[in-house]
Amino acid sequence: MIKIGIIGAGRIGRVHAESLSKYVQGAEIKAISDVKVSDELKSWAASKGIPHVYTDYQKILQDPEIDAVLVCSSTNTHAPISIEAARAGKHIFCEKPIDSDVERIKQVLAEVEKAGVKFQVGFNRRFDHNFKAIKERVVSGDIGEPHIIRVTSRDPDAPPIDYVKVSGGMFFDMTIHDFDMIRYLSGSEVTEVYASGAVLVDPEIGRAGDIDTAVITLKLANGAIGVIDNSRKAVYGYDQRAEVFGSKGAVQTRNDTDSTAVYSCERGVIAEKPKYFFLERYMQSFADEMQCFIASIVNDTPTAVNGNDGLQPVLIAIAAKRSLDEGRPVKLSEVA
Amino acid sequence: MIKIGIIGAGRIGRVHAESLSKYVQGAEIKAISDVKVSDELKSWAASKGIPHVYTDYQKILQDPEIDAVLVCSSTNTHAPISIEAARAGKHIFCEKPIDSDVERIKQVLAEVEKAGVKFQVGFNRRFDHNFKAIKERVVSGDIGEPHIIRVTSRDPDAPPIDYVKVSGGMFFDMTIHDFDMIRYLSGSEVTEVYASGAVLVDPEIGRAGDIDTAVITLKLANGAIGVIDNSRKAVYGYDQRAEVFGSKGAVQTRNDTDSTAVYSCERGVIAEKPKYFFLERYMQSFADEMQCFIASIVNDTPTAVNGNDGLQPVLIAIAAKRSLDEGRPVKLSEVA
Amino acid sequence: MIKIGIIGAGRIGRVHAESLSKYVQGAEIKAISDVKVSDELKSWAASKGIPHVYTDYQKILQDPEIDAVLVCSSTNTHAPISIEAARAGKHIFCEKPIDSDVERIKQVLAEVEKAGVKFQVGFNRRFDHNFKAIKERVVSGDIGEPHIIRVTSRDPDAPPIDYVKVSGGMFFDMTIHDFDMIRYLSGSEVTEVYASGAVLVDPEIGRAGDIDTAVITLKLANGAIGVIDNSRKAVYGYDQRAEVFGSKGAVQTRNDTDSTAVYSCERGVIAEKPKYFFLERYMQSFADEMQCFIASIVNDTPTAVNGNDGLQPVLIAIAAKRSLDEGRPVKLSEVA
Amino acid sequence: MIKIGIIGAGRIGRVHAESLSKYVQGAEIKAISDVKVSDELKSWAASKGIPHVYTDYQKILQDPEIDAVLVCSSTNTHAPISIEAARAGKHIFCEKPIDSDVERIKQVLAEVEKAGVKFQVGFNRRFDHNFKAIKERVVSGDIGEPHIIRVTSRDPDAPPIDYVKVSGGMFFDMTIHDFDMIRYLSGSEVTEVYASGAVLVDPEIGRAGDIDTAVITLKLANGAIGVIDNSRKAVYGYDQRAEVFGSKGAVQTRNDTDSTAVYSCERGVIAEKPKYFFLERYMQSFADEMQCFIASIVNDTPTAVNGNDGLQPVLIAIAAKRSLDEGRPVKLSEVA
Repeated sequence: MIKIGIIGAGRIGRVHAESLSKYVQGAEIKAISDVKVSDELKSWAASKGIPHVYTDYQKILQDPEIDAVLVCSSTNTHAPISIEAARAGKHIFCEKPIDSDVERIKQVLAEVEKAGVKFQVGFNRRFDHNFKAIKERVVSGDIGEPHIIRVTSRDPDAPPIDYVKVSGGMFFDMTIHDFDMIRYLSGSEVTEVYASGAVLVDPEIGRAGDIDTAVITLKLANGAIGVIDNSRKAVYGYDQRAEVFGSKGAVQTRNDTDSTAVYSCERGVIAEKPKYFFLERYMQSFADEMQCFIASIVNDTPTAVNGNDGLQPVLIAIAAKRSLDEGRPVKLSEVA
Repeated sequence: MIKIGIIGAGRIGRVHAESLSKYVQGAEIKAISDVKVSDELKSWAASKGIPHVYTDYQKILQDPEIDAVLVCSSTNTHAPISIEAARAGKHIFCEKPIDSDVERIKQVLAEVEKAGVKFQVGFNRRFDHNFKAIKERVVSGDIGEPHIIRVTSRDPDAPPIDYVKVSGGMFFDMTIHDFDMIRYLSGSEVTEVYASGAVLVDPEIGRAGDIDTAVITLKLANGAIGVIDNSRKAVYGYDQRAEVFGSKGAVQTRNDTDSTAVYSCERGVIAEKPKYFFLERYMQSFADEMQCFIASIVNDTPTAVNGNDGLQPVLIAIAAKRSLDEGRPVKLSEVA
Repeated sequence: MIKIGIIGAGRIGRVHAESLSKYVQGAEIKAISDVKVSDELKSWAASKGIPHVYTDYQKILQDPEIDAVLVCSSTNTHAPISIEAARAGKHIFCEKPIDSDVERIKQVLAEVEKAGVKFQVGFNRRFDHNFKAIKERVVSGDIGEPHIIRVTSRDPDAPPIDYVKVSGGMFFDMTIHDFDMIRYLSGSEVTEVYASGAVLVDPEIGRAGDIDTAVITLKLANGAIGVIDNSRKAVYGYDQRAEVFGSKGAVQTRNDTDSTAVYSCERGVIAEKPKYFFLERYMQSFADEMQCFIASIVNDTPTAVNGNDGLQPVLIAIAAKRSLDEGRPVKLSEVA
Repeated sequence: MIKIGIIGAGRIGRVHAESLSKYVQGAEIKAISDVKVSDELKSWAASKGIPHVYTDYQKILQDPEIDAVLVCSSTNTHAPISIEAARAGKHIFCEKPIDSDVERIKQVLAEVEKAGVKFQVGFNRRFDHNFKAIKERVVSGDIGEPHIIRVTSRDPDAPPIDYVKVSGGMFFDMTIHDFDMIRYLSGSEVTEVYASGAVLVDPEIGRAGDIDTAVITLKLANGAIGVIDNSRKAVYGYDQRAEVFGSKGAVQTRNDTDSTAVYSCERGVIAEKPKYFFLERYMQSFADEMQCFIASIVNDTPTAVNGNDGLQPVLIAIAAKRSLDEGRPVKLSEVA
């Protein structure tokens, strides 16, 4: 049994705890830490069978029984905690993004390499059944050479404006998953980015210095072109689709729904809306990425989403932001 | 050019006139007759370029230039007019049903055979693109041996009660197309029928001695089982679907719609309703059956829907009615 | 925590153990029994955290700590064990069918009533997300009065011939779920059954005295008509669909698939096959029925699938078998 | 009856002749001209009932009985012939693009205005049932404010390399329809274009100075963002889809197919490929645009696709080409 410590008991930390306790084989959570330990957190931890709840994450790092840590704390602490964890010899699952600063990410990756610990980044969508089905068609050669990779990624509603202000901007907070998806589906690296953005959902978002709508074009090393469209608010629910088009064919996915029921009436033929948001849509993928992380520790195999997979989307996000600001395509070599 | 006379200028007579004048190659309409010739009919005929409009259909039969007639008059006149037409040496396209009396149908077929003229029955749905696509899968062997043949056939609304009273009953008026479809898709003959019926749409229909809802099970000579479900009223439009299931796979069709547009909003994901009724859904099939009839005359080849194809569905309808009345399965040999 | 004993460690017993240990809140398995206790069973039980493994199910019935039992033993023992369990004051989850003999079922229900214990029958498909979505449309009134209820239920492959011989026949083994589904979706009782059956998949099945293909028509107390089509072998996978058509509209479900991916290539536009069989398709429903059973014990509320829900499908199956044998529709009052 | 002269008897000229003779009410073709009048052309014209076939299109312009001309000659002659036709007082239906030179287009539009004749440009896709269904949702307000407009437009195969060399480039030859579609669906003007292009289908196309794959981002005056993806070769057929996403919902269309048949077998669940190419997919839209042109003459109403609708897509194509060449977004004001 791999013993796990979770650093950060916010939403995503609890999602991983839920996965580990219910769905994941071969691992158990020994401790969880959070800067604020409430009674609610204690009783929640007890209900999940987590023996220890700490305010200080150092207690997790210092526990020799703990094999691996999940870094689920606030984004600005991902890098320093990962470095400490690596030095403590813990395997690391780090939530995305590792950091918004490229040098700090590189420092993390260097420390991880030096320590020889496993390091996996939380791009859970790679484990989604639909996107995996696309990837399998690409890898099998059914698509031939990829020519166009399209990702549609629209949230059901904009986050609170206070969150927007500290989110690092839409490209770092939301599109970063789509940047990863373009790399994952294409099997190639992004070389240039052009981002077109707008404030159409809520002018408050614009006043906070961010955008809520975007179309981003990405040139890939293999010659293919990627394109992402984003919105912070799709009134019909979480819209998460992708398509890879190539020399031998195309593969695309639709949204998941709670059921396949279709109702025919005088008003039309009505199917269900997409699953509401990421917890509904991607719950199984959270479990699967965790299972995969545990397996890489147990079998001493490379993680499915490695350090470079954590670095590249941040570079793309930086290039996208610069492209938006300067109104021109930006090469990744400009920001690497 | 094949010269055509149309006997009966009601709805279906005009549908065929429209097809012939707009879509069908190699034929022209020389005359149309109707028991009532109104000014409206005359001007309609002029607009379609039909030179002659008669009250007496005999003028059509007596015109030596006319090669073929379409028998589109009231159902009870189909048989006698077809016999006269055969004796006059005209090729015959006869609307369904030929008659509700088996002996009279057999008499028509005997006269047609004696005269050596072409005879096609108006089961236009065999020419529908969707049902043809099913048939092609069956004929190609993709389905293997057919095991279950399903037909869903629901009208958008019940006909006027005065029509119901003279319609001959739902099995003869509406289901007769589905009986033909079961034979067409299965490539086999019906041997036994069990009909379950109900009055659920409109009690007036029940008072008129008819039903408005039915499920009919049919045993086929090749061992397969057919099943039809009917309703006189589907509030969402004309529901016309079929499926053939067999040892190697299944093929099924959906309804046609005016467009493929799908609207996603807070209320759901809304596609269009099926095309409203048979003129919208089956217009192309009316043109194609007519083209096929003309081709059989020009090339002296068998018609696509022959006399036996006109007889069998009537036998099935008779058996279905008896099954409904007597509450038991009825063999076709009992009514043939 | 409700303490559970599982009687019978075959496939379905293990499915429930899996559900209880992984997905169900508020219950724990204290013991499992089987007529044959192998080393494999012992180690499997240990891996699920089940403390006790018995050869004799009486040890479960005699354990005062055990609140409820799952009767997952061979079909012919469902009734006697349920009676013993009721007399021992245990709540009972009984796999379907309770028995093939109506009098024995009635005896079970009488004992359950006398003991005042909960009794739920294993019609898990009522908990399936798709069929629940249909049911919700019916209950909400969106369908209006139900007119036609259709169930398509086809297995991916026929069971071994040795199983067929002891299965009690297709209607008791396979269609019994569909009989329950017709009752569940229509909210009405079946009054008459007409079954048309054939041996088209495998002549061995016919030699064993069973059929492998069927279409069954059911008259319902509310006037609606139900129709089921069955096959023991759909080469494309487990085909599980239903439709309710009524005065205000219709609702239908498609099959579930592993992903929504659609591959377009020179050969066509290819979607995934249905999930392979009942474990893949209905796993969540097994968990949900178990959760529901636990909830009815904890909250002292009626079970979702009660004794009469266990009895009626058996009556329908008996009527269907008689209909098939005698070639006539059979009223349920003849067999009740 | 409006009397029509067709200038240019190539593929598109004959498509319009076919539409006019079969589907369009209130018009007849009096003459057709082509620089090469073969026997085949004469006999084809006779079969369509076209009385006159000329080498010199001036005979059409000089015929006082002819009300309107269709300019279907080679692209470089569209502008001068349109100008001559306007001066001759003929109503003009001009195939797209009017010209690749903005000044010449403006000259055409000025002459048309001076002559007071009708002028319609051949953007037939506006008359396609699917795109009209999107437009209706937009116009009705169901989408709210448009935020993202997506057009997928992929041909089934690349044209011959000799054609590519004289085509004016993919943006003028193929994408020009998509530029029009973005304007039509959004109801707004394009203000800036960024084009990313690649040669992935056939290196010969690259050697001819053209591209075969592109993603184009368009900023619109109403703040929305448009995005087009193009390929010269989709092996599965003609891929023509669009989506408008806005504040109240989204609407999207799928491809048309010859039938709705879906075949389920061991290999998967297989639907039909899209209709093969533009003649199959857009035939009805060619008839409808022609009917609309005739109606605007008869009723003296504005044409549905006016001179500015002909000019704007050319401006966008010029900007797209410059964007591709210079690797930067280009404002329409730079090229207007």
